[in-house]
Amino acid sequence: MNENKALALHEKWNGKLETISKTPVKTREDLAIAYTPGVAEPCKVIAKDKDLAYKYTMKANTIAVVSDGSAVLGLGNIGPHAAMPVMEGKAVLFKEFGGVNAVPICLDTQDTEEIIKAVTYIAPGFGGINLEDISAPRCFEIEERLKEILDIPVFHDDQHGTAIVVLAGIINALKVVGKAKEDCRVVVNGAGSAGVAITRLLLTYGFSDIIMCDKAGIISKDSQSLNWMQEKMAVLTNLSGKTGTLSDALKGADIFVGVSAPGIVTPQMVSSMNKDAVLFAMANPVPEIMPDEAKAAGARIVGTGRSDFPNQINNVVAFPGIFKGALEGRASRITEEMKLAAATAIASLVPDRELNEENIIPEAFNPKVAELVAEAVKAHIR
Amino acid sequence: MNENKALALHEKWNGKLETISKTPVKTREDLAIAYTPGVAEPCKVIAKDKDLAYKYTMKANTIAVVSDGSAVLGLGNIGPHAAMPVMEGKAVLFKEFGGVNAVPICLDTQDTEEIIKAVTYIAPGFGGINLEDISAPRCFEIEERLKEILDIPVFHDDQHGTAIVVLAGIINALKVVGKAKEDCRVVVNGAGSAGVAITRLLLTYGFSDIIMCDKAGIISKDSQSLNWMQEKMAVLTNLSGKTGTLSDALKGADIFVGVSAPGIVTPQMVSSMNKDAVLFAMANPVPEIMPDEAKAAGARIVGTGRSDFPNQINNVVAFPGIFKGALEGRASRITEEMKLAAATAIASLVPDRELNEENIIPEAFNPKVAELVAEAVKAHIR
Repeated sequence: MNENKALALHEKWNGKLETISKTPVKTREDLAIAYTPGVAEPCKVIAKDKDLAYKYTMKANTIAVVSDGSAVLGLGNIGPHAAMPVMEGKAVLFKEFGGVNAVPICLDTQDTEEIIKAVTYIAPGFGGINLEDISAPRCFEIEERLKEILDIPVFHDDQHGTAIVVLAGIINALKVVGKAKEDCRVVVNGAGSAGVAITRLLLTYGFSDIIMCDKAGIISKDSQSLNWMQEKMAVLTNLSGKTGTLSDALKGADIFVGVSAPGIVTPQMVSSMNKDAVLFAMANPVPEIMPDEAKAAGARIVGTGRSDFPNQINNVVAFPGIFKGALEGRASRITEEMKLAAATAIASLVPDRELNEENIIPEAFNPKVAELVAEAVKAHIR
Repeated sequence: MNENKALALHEKWNGKLETISKTPVKTREDLAIAYTPGVAEPCKVIAKDKDLAYKYTMKANTIAVVSDGSAVLGLGNIGPHAAMPVMEGKAVLFKEFGGVNAVPICLDTQDTEEIIKAVTYIAPGFGGINLEDISAPRCFEIEERLKEILDIPVFHDDQHGTAIVVLAGIINALKVVGKAKEDCRVVVNGAGSAGVAITRLLLTYGFSDIIMCDKAGIISKDSQSLNWMQEKMAVLTNLSGKTGTLSDALKGADIFVGVSAPGIVTPQMVSSMNKDAVLFAMANPVPEIMPDEAKAAGARIVGTGRSDFPNQINNVVAFPGIFKGALEGRASRITEEMKLAAATAIASLVPDRELNEENIIPEAFNPKVAELVAEAVKAHIR
């Protein structure tokens, strides 16, 4: 990937997304049906029953991709204008991979209450809300509150998309190394949106021995200066009350999941892990440890966020199918069951005979991925 | 136009609009450029200069079509869900006629302050805001305040789109009947968003003898229960201080512009007007007086909002070109000069040799319309 090429193409595109009409407007009759007076008919029936918006409008198949630009990629708080290329890209992927129409909405406020209001106000025209690149811990409250207020699915992809793909990868990695989840100790490094969501989904899936770390080391009930969500996680994880550094946490661990910073895992740390260690080093673009280094230090399976190494942990295998299924099935929320089912579906796309150390995650371009994830979501709509 | 057909087609379409990618995402390389890591490049340059969003994102060519559903067509306050078919239709016309991408945003609030906030918050991703079907007098304040806050064009089409097309029609009608604007008395019936905007634009154009009427009759400085905007209009119009009914107002008038209610103009009223009277009876779907009745009573030129009579006063000849020009020229607002220039441009599309009583407004499907309107707008960007 050439940086100048990326910039030049973005200039040429001048926006990666466009809106188009599904129906031509070439005659007076076309105009009279798509606009006045014909358009009054669906308006009148929706006015009587707003649920019919799903029958007569794009609400049925369109989501908003909402960001406040506060935590964009690894670039940090770059604001709503600079977040647009990412939200457009995300909208493109929703359509290309999941067939879901998506509209980038970049908000000119970073106030939690105002974001909640803005999303609530724009919701009538959308069938779902994908939150994106909103900094922790505000993202947790914004998502939780919007889920309570709205009757459409609200999904913070940085949290749950990542968590689903990580779980899918771990399910397959454990098959390769022949370990049971009950016997594994997991270390999650990074206690922001992704780290918290990954930990929560792994707990739901049945892992019980999980230690979270952040910059100050192992998170325990005694840790200082945790945010409210990290305090909650301190109760759910690290049940033996370990203290110390990431290095201490990794001794004897089976699985490392990094959503943290480049190069912070050393070969010595990898060597101190349990036999057949699995590492998902997802810091971008430079992982917590490079795959060859980790392998040389004894790791059996290594995944990263990068497309130039095997086992790319990329949530594009999750989010398009999640919303495709939610919209097709008219789900009002994305539940924990749906996330587990989606992870299992993604894992199942690498058949056992093809599973190996370098192939635990299906190819993003496999057209079956979104379809199978959508089916998994739909099967769990209550 | 068959009502059942309109409903059936809206169900078949299930949304008249879709979002599509301008670039295929079929390979890892595609993905690496349109999304991570390539997308970081435009993000970084926009973070340094947010103006570059116009170079690298869809802000350059995309507007929001915003409504709160409080005054939709002639259906009244039907709410944001029921307003969606109209906003989708409008978005379709923006693209089909003006090449402008447009996103329907239907707001779940009818509070003036909250609408202003919501539109301000979503503005970063859009190059313009088209307000639609918001009830008067809130629409005036919402538009004025947003124009002060935002650095992108804000345009309430029910007001200004209608005013521009009415002015275009009047310019040509006066050519046909051979009268000068200075010699004409105009009666505008209906003092909501359209009536107010039409009156203001006619004043700006140079008409000085205008009387506004509403349900209670002629609006004068002594009228009771006017809203703040109508009070303002009472000072700018009816300089001779007339009182009475619509019937009194029309005696000796040259031009009638109706944005009011079906059938409220009688043949007797038309007969009482000046010679070569011009009537724009735009109540929808049933005009203030039917064209044949008005003609029989002595009117020389009659226009309506309907496509099944000559002289359809349809703002689709204005709004697509207005935003096309504003976006192409990076206008930060739509000025009075632009509106006058747009009206003149629309009028000019009916060449003098083709002008007659039944042909004063160009055909909406004439591809030159939006182009010429856009050029007129661009010529007045300062």
